[in-house]
Amino acid sequence: MRTTVGWQSTDHSPALRRTEFDRRDLRDDDIAVRVDYCGVCHSDLHRIRGVFRDEGALVPGHEFTGTVTATGSAVTAFTPGDRVAVGTVVDSCGECAMCRAGQENYCHQGATSTYGGTDRIDGTPTRGGYSREYVLRDRFAYRLPEALDAATAAPLLCAGITMWEPMRAAGVGPGSRVAIAGLGGLGHLGVKFAAALGAEVTVLSRTPDKAADACRLGATDLLVSTDDDQLAAACGRFDLVLDTISAPHEVPPLLRLLALDGTLCVVGWPGSIPLQVMDLIYGRKKLTASGTGGRAGTAEMLAFAAEHGIGADIELLPSARVEEALTRLDRGDVRYRFVLDLADLDT
Amino acid sequence: MRTTVGWQSTDHSPALRRTEFDRRDLRDDDIAVRVDYCGVCHSDLHRIRGVFRDEGALVPGHEFTGTVTATGSAVTAFTPGDRVAVGTVVDSCGECAMCRAGQENYCHQGATSTYGGTDRIDGTPTRGGYSREYVLRDRFAYRLPEALDAATAAPLLCAGITMWEPMRAAGVGPGSRVAIAGLGGLGHLGVKFAAALGAEVTVLSRTPDKAADACRLGATDLLVSTDDDQLAAACGRFDLVLDTISAPHEVPPLLRLLALDGTLCVVGWPGSIPLQVMDLIYGRKKLTASGTGGRAGTAEMLAFAAEHGIGADIELLPSARVEEALTRLDRGDVRYRFVLDLADLDT
Repeated sequence: MRTTVGWQSTDHSPALRRTEFDRRDLRDDDIAVRVDYCGVCHSDLHRIRGVFRDEGALVPGHEFTGTVTATGSAVTAFTPGDRVAVGTVVDSCGECAMCRAGQENYCHQGATSTYGGTDRIDGTPTRGGYSREYVLRDRFAYRLPEALDAATAAPLLCAGITMWEPMRAAGVGPGSRVAIAGLGGLGHLGVKFAAALGAEVTVLSRTPDKAADACRLGATDLLVSTDDDQLAAACGRFDLVLDTISAPHEVPPLLRLLALDGTLCVVGWPGSIPLQVMDLIYGRKKLTASGTGGRAGTAEMLAFAAEHGIGADIELLPSARVEEALTRLDRGDVRYRFVLDLADLDT
Repeated sequence: MRTTVGWQSTDHSPALRRTEFDRRDLRDDDIAVRVDYCGVCHSDLHRIRGVFRDEGALVPGHEFTGTVTATGSAVTAFTPGDRVAVGTVVDSCGECAMCRAGQENYCHQGATSTYGGTDRIDGTPTRGGYSREYVLRDRFAYRLPEALDAATAAPLLCAGITMWEPMRAAGVGPGSRVAIAGLGGLGHLGVKFAAALGAEVTVLSRTPDKAADACRLGATDLLVSTDDDQLAAACGRFDLVLDTISAPHEVPPLLRLLALDGTLCVVGWPGSIPLQVMDLIYGRKKLTASGTGGRAGTAEMLAFAAEHGIGADIELLPSARVEEALTRLDRGDVRYRFVLDLADLDT
């Protein structure tokens, strides 16, 4: 076994504790990665707190970049020293319709989550990227394009791909009218991607505070979502609304913003969605949801990000300040993604 | 004013009463239609009963065929003697984004319903096709193609177009895997249209009773929706599920039948839909709803029906037996649509 060190939650508190634990010895198709940078995702906070279910102790972190340090005997795609990126999924069955379609994230047998999951081979719990070393099957690591900065690229692996896939599924391109509800970690990358795809992008935010940021990121407009007049004036205006809001909220007011055959894609966490047929029927509006992405989409997204110079706007902290990151994230005090620098775990 | 006679509900009962009432004198762009055949739609039953709201007295009927008897001075598209068909919408603003997109049924100002609506010009209540004469704006009447039988074509104007539009919006064609939940008035036309479009069609029904009918109509398979094993085996199988069920029911089990990026379109009446993000996210499934259609789609549907010899499977009754039709419809005792012959109102 390989010993590493990371930050572990114990009692549903964001005060994670530094913990030593084992990574498995490399299998033939495994690589070992020195984790350099790991993004702090809102779902880390949800899961630490047991919002979905009580998961017990967790080492969070599912969007990270790092450096290959060792490879299994059958690995040909990577060699030590390669820069790589890892996202929310580290294994899948490879055989079901979803895996065959390149959507390993929706694997019918259950994709193996980067943390809080169970390894398909040895049944051990997976521990995430808030740690100095990660061991995973080679096919779930992505080569980090040279043009991308390793720290600002880390959030692309969850926040970025979560915005990218539904835009691609909806065919966003020049002329598309896209609204991004919530300008946080996901939302700010959504604005960048949508603008780079040629769409006309509008941000929906609770206050006008972020209007200047929205424009700088590529939006043409910011609508204040608490202003009923502004919302009413925007009825029927968008082909795609991406709902990134991570707190419980009403979905029907966002549906009213859609044009004929428009799509509202939930990528945040609205809680349960009490819906009436009438919310959808006038304009044949579509409600969908999407979470992270598959291998093909992730590779495509990284190449696009490299081509267009897209990374997250981050606040970089030494990993020992993870509690501060989680606490500030909880009150929305970050523009726009915390990234942990794991180098401090060497000392 | 023009006097006509029809069947009117009074006390939320399906025992409609024969009533004389006035139709307006023809405006420049009006036509008068002798109603020959009118389909009995499940929503007639819902609305008589005040399921959505108390509408008071109604003359139902919003899928009918007939013969032009008079035309206003500015009408050029029709002359007396023409066979025409009329659906659920008899006017709209003509200027909003929906009307401009050919979806008058979703008019932002509110399309004028064929019955239980309010005329846009004189503010009078509209009364439907359970009557011997109807007067409407010419652009909301459709020429009935010669190849179509006037009685079996009547249900195309609501049931038919309601199935047609979401199939066209979803791009149904050769190779599409379509499921039709509920084999009634809507469902049986859905099977015919989907099969004629080249799709592989499966019927979902509570019992296997209709398996032979399903095949005769063009389906390749019938799944018994109360059989959990059959439903489990069909998970992820369909690109489009059309939910025609008109009684309250659970929607998530139908969502589980969808393949990646598949669409569930509600065209029946499931009641409210309590939904979780998890119902949609695995496979990026889309939930939508659709109701009837616009002028362009209706004309296209009628041409397609004529080309492929598609009409409803009907039970034709003299209009005096409307109570029997509504009562039997209520218990599902019809294969597959009642059509009223209004000729008996002349005597």
